[in-house]
Amino acid sequence: MKKDFKQIPIGYFYMPNEIEDYPCDIDNYSNTIQVEGYNFTLSYLSKPCNNSLMELETNSWKLDELVITTADYSNFYSIQCNKTIKFNKTSGNESDNDIWLKEKLLINKEFEWCNHLSLKYFLMPSLSAETDLNLYGMTLNQLLAKANYTKIIVPVDLQVPNAWLIWNKLRFICNHSPSINLALIFPSDASIELTNFDQWIAEPLKLIIIPTARFIPNKKGYPVLSPADQQSIASTLKLNLKYLVSSSEYKKSHAMHTGDSSISSYSKYLRFLFSKSSSSVSFSKNYLLQENPEIDEFSEGYQDYLQSPLQPLMNHLESSTYQVFEKDPVKYSQYELAIYRALRDRTSDDVALIMVVGAGRGPLVDCSLRAAAQANRRVKVLAVEKNPNAFITLQYKKSLEWQDRVELYFGDMRYFEPIELADILVSELLGSFGDNELSPECLDGIQRCLKPGGISIPCDYSSYLAPLSSTKLFNNIQYYQDESKFHSPYVVMFQSVFRLTDPQYVWKFEHPNFEVKNNSNLHNCRHTKLKFNIPLDGIVHGLAGYFEATLYKDVKLSINPSTHSPGMFSWFPLFFPIKNPLTVRKGEELNVNIWRYGEDKKVWYEWSLGSDNQFGPEFIHNSQGQHYYIGL
Amino acid sequence: MKKDFKQIPIGYFYMPNEIEDYPCDIDNYSNTIQVEGYNFTLSYLSKPCNNSLMELETNSWKLDELVITTADYSNFYSIQCNKTIKFNKTSGNESDNDIWLKEKLLINKEFEWCNHLSLKYFLMPSLSAETDLNLYGMTLNQLLAKANYTKIIVPVDLQVPNAWLIWNKLRFICNHSPSINLALIFPSDASIELTNFDQWIAEPLKLIIIPTARFIPNKKGYPVLSPADQQSIASTLKLNLKYLVSSSEYKKSHAMHTGDSSISSYSKYLRFLFSKSSSSVSFSKNYLLQENPEIDEFSEGYQDYLQSPLQPLMNHLESSTYQVFEKDPVKYSQYELAIYRALRDRTSDDVALIMVVGAGRGPLVDCSLRAAAQANRRVKVLAVEKNPNAFITLQYKKSLEWQDRVELYFGDMRYFEPIELADILVSELLGSFGDNELSPECLDGIQRCLKPGGISIPCDYSSYLAPLSSTKLFNNIQYYQDESKFHSPYVVMFQSVFRLTDPQYVWKFEHPNFEVKNNSNLHNCRHTKLKFNIPLDGIVHGLAGYFEATLYKDVKLSINPSTHSPGMFSWFPLFFPIKNPLTVRKGEELNVNIWRYGEDKKVWYEWSLGSDNQFGPEFIHNSQGQHYYIGL
Repeated sequence: MKKDFKQIPIGYFYMPNEIEDYPCDIDNYSNTIQVEGYNFTLSYLSKPCNNSLMELETNSWKLDELVITTADYSNFYSIQCNKTIKFNKTSGNESDNDIWLKEKLLINKEFEWCNHLSLKYFLMPSLSAETDLNLYGMTLNQLLAKANYTKIIVPVDLQVPNAWLIWNKLRFICNHSPSINLALIFPSDASIELTNFDQWIAEPLKLIIIPTARFIPNKKGYPVLSPADQQSIASTLKLNLKYLVSSSEYKKSHAMHTGDSSISSYSKYLRFLFSKSSSSVSFSKNYLLQENPEIDEFSEGYQDYLQSPLQPLMNHLESSTYQVFEKDPVKYSQYELAIYRALRDRTSDDVALIMVVGAGRGPLVDCSLRAAAQANRRVKVLAVEKNPNAFITLQYKKSLEWQDRVELYFGDMRYFEPIELADILVSELLGSFGDNELSPECLDGIQRCLKPGGISIPCDYSSYLAPLSSTKLFNNIQYYQDESKFHSPYVVMFQSVFRLTDPQYVWKFEHPNFEVKNNSNLHNCRHTKLKFNIPLDGIVHGLAGYFEATLYKDVKLSINPSTHSPGMFSWFPLFFPIKNPLTVRKGEELNVNIWRYGEDKKVWYEWSLGSDNQFGPEFIHNSQGQHYYIGL
Repeated sequence: MKKDFKQIPIGYFYMPNEIEDYPCDIDNYSNTIQVEGYNFTLSYLSKPCNNSLMELETNSWKLDELVITTADYSNFYSIQCNKTIKFNKTSGNESDNDIWLKEKLLINKEFEWCNHLSLKYFLMPSLSAETDLNLYGMTLNQLLAKANYTKIIVPVDLQVPNAWLIWNKLRFICNHSPSINLALIFPSDASIELTNFDQWIAEPLKLIIIPTARFIPNKKGYPVLSPADQQSIASTLKLNLKYLVSSSEYKKSHAMHTGDSSISSYSKYLRFLFSKSSSSVSFSKNYLLQENPEIDEFSEGYQDYLQSPLQPLMNHLESSTYQVFEKDPVKYSQYELAIYRALRDRTSDDVALIMVVGAGRGPLVDCSLRAAAQANRRVKVLAVEKNPNAFITLQYKKSLEWQDRVELYFGDMRYFEPIELADILVSELLGSFGDNELSPECLDGIQRCLKPGGISIPCDYSSYLAPLSSTKLFNNIQYYQDESKFHSPYVVMFQSVFRLTDPQYVWKFEHPNFEVKNNSNLHNCRHTKLKFNIPLDGIVHGLAGYFEATLYKDVKLSINPSTHSPGMFSWFPLFFPIKNPLTVRKGEELNVNIWRYGEDKKVWYEWSLGSDNQFGPEFIHNSQGQHYYIGL
């Protein structure tokens, strides 16, 4: 089910220069904006004023100070706070006390009226290099605490140098409040290019504001956006934002007949852009999945949703889980190919014993039989499964389809005592991070059943990590109000995320591993230290985890972005969060330590992130597997 | 009640160089150490070994690998982990996996035996520039999680350059675990001077280790410490530490007859040093209070104890609280002097009306009467008090002592309607931070009762702040496991603290303030921004708050360290904590924002700390007074 991008709301923001220009006939004004093709408008609530501190504190609004005086348009209007409010840096001396107090009283008074009218959004002053982020943040905190219906938006002017760093500082001052939303203001000057726009995808965006001056005339003279801007806009379309055209033009165009006016040409163009994009969204590089109806259906509702990793060893999977994964169009054809190649490479003519361990409802049994037919090799398939429910399906399929070609064994593969040894061991025990569903331990356990020189499919798998920004994922974890939730990895279909740099190799497991001799699991313990060169100022909310696996020779499976198996959807990446978001600067090195460790009946990861240039380094998460472990 | 420093435990740590040197006759060894005047010993638990990973995992200890083989000496022994364990930096490659795994298994095995024997302390390897703090911290976390009786100590070698920074990094890696204790190892080389030793007072010290090589021979050839070292030791005496002499000498001295051996000379000297110090402790500059028996008694048990600031306006004080404060030998004599001066400065001969507002049990009434007698001026004293219990005492004193010289009025001073106006208004409403018990609001309310040109005693008060390190205070707040506890200031008698730099002026309140016209309290709102130049690498756990007040002309009260009224003990400083301890580097500027803000019936502080060189800045604490406020 594809989203209809044509329904995306577009608004208009008329910014009067002089007090006389503030609209006084709101009926007429609202009507015009609507007729020009806009779904909402942003407006100042009150006109610039010079009230004293005492007047602000004691008096109610006078009607002529206000632009919006009734609740008639509550669905149509959002509010930009008074033009005079800046929260600019002051000397901090006592004599400056009145400046911020006045701004604080005024914005408070505006916000209360706005809230009373149930207007949807209230925009703070836009951030600039002059903003005193402590004064701004102190007030923002206060408004956030009072907001119920009305949402508060912090506008970020992308024209301001280091705009992202300024916003980032404010976020820390406000202690990562999950209630802050952002509006991005495109530069008025069309010649200013947006750099690192993708980074904003990981931020709590609500609104994109495009000044009319940003548009450039096309050959016919109609306003259009540059190809780069089109791409920026397209990268935001899946995020459920609103878009707003801002201009100091209104009276003039209002005089023109509606429909062809300069105002409507922007909404028309954006509407056209959205509808064009909905048929060929140019995905940002953060999107792992290609455009694919099957995937769209599969992923609906899963974007940025935190799932606890499966524990197939401790829990029995549901039928529906098998059903979903069996639909993957890529994974099983790769398995089939790997088995086919392995059978073709056999020099012996004997009947090959293929052991499918963790057979589930049997997809790899089917793969094995098809591969054997294709390779023209005689095989016997032995399917081992510990899930009693899946085992019923296996029996059903054996009686119906497989017959004598397949033998079934019910039980845990680690304790399976075979009558004969296998030529090929086929398993699908990989998690998003490769080893995180205990494939190493399971395959170590079953390899007794493999002939010397026998083959394991997969024969190896490697893990990869990259530093990730995502305010959304961070907020989703914060929402639990349970610190231990930061000590667990999650399976996530990434959407509002930004990868700061490319993933790096972490570690690898190979099978069979006949060096394993005793019952110790120490050889599956790992520690790796990574160093990431950070190419831009950014924030790290955690690590994105991926795997690459070799099924057989050059037949591979990968969810690592640069080598991702096209169209494969069985695995979303793993997200290792960190409790304290970490700001990293361009040129810095980010140090990552990650452990895979085990004791008794548990295996777990611990991870820490830090930068040499900074204190304090991030602490070690999930120490001693206290919060998250995988049960053996 | 003075502490008897002579009872401080002194231990001996014999560090064998070769495996052959490890003591084998533990009875004899323990006995000798005890006879030489030591209360405990530190010992290796096991000898250096070359066991493989698998041997370590599967085998129990062999008796000849161990130094301690029975529980016979559990009260006398603490343990230094095996000499071979380092957790040094490795390449982080997979091939290095075995190195840390081996060290981890060995230390684990040692710790379990140590814990089983209920030995008191287990010392980790000492920190050095080569230590891989992530590997070290990962293991430390694990041991801390397993420790019950045995406490874990991290030794810090003060000879290592940047020893404090290394420890600080480890603390962040271990997420500020409150279970970590430190041992400080003095440099063996007596010529190495300890710099910034005071900084360690704010750290979780348990043990001071002094190598015998640190001692220098005195004229008679006996080992003594340098004057600087003596002072360092003295500054730690109030902290309840243990002291340990370490040496590779044992066998040799053991051959000598006991009592005069080289070993006993260290314990004798330390015992002498402690007893000398107990009669004249050279307080570190962190101690606000002078040596004074009255103060010692008063402060017993209050060191580093977090008290919620008094709310005398919302709550009625207890009689015992009055009693304690009335004992202050300095405060009331300053008040008396101020009233005396004010009366002497009067040009009129009329009877002066002194209004004592918030009279409590009447100490300021007594001051006023004494001052009048002394100044030979006729006065009438009017005492206003809202606490019905204190008012009973006032009535009692009036009937017994004051008679007609004093009139009493029961009620809140802010609503008191006087028959005549006062010449002098005397109040004692100051908190540790000056205005934090709402003196400004109360005096604004009562100043209606003051004649034009009348005098308020105090006539002004200023607040001061300094950045403070204190792991103890931080841990005490962490202990609540309630984040909101970081959003409140506390009254604390500082002990295990270190002030990173001198306090700075914050803001001031003056009385009377006849500009106040309406009911607004905006004029008592404040915002101040401070910049502290940080003179050394350090950690900030919060702010220390102080006040200075002018009672009248040059008659002052101060708890600001540089101007502290000698001997006055009525006020401990205020501590504003921060949730995320902040590492600051030498030469950096620390920015502090603090607000005093009010709405409705509340006044509160908000505060934030940050450094320009770092992200993220500390967030704004107690936003909107959500966690702490003072009720009007």
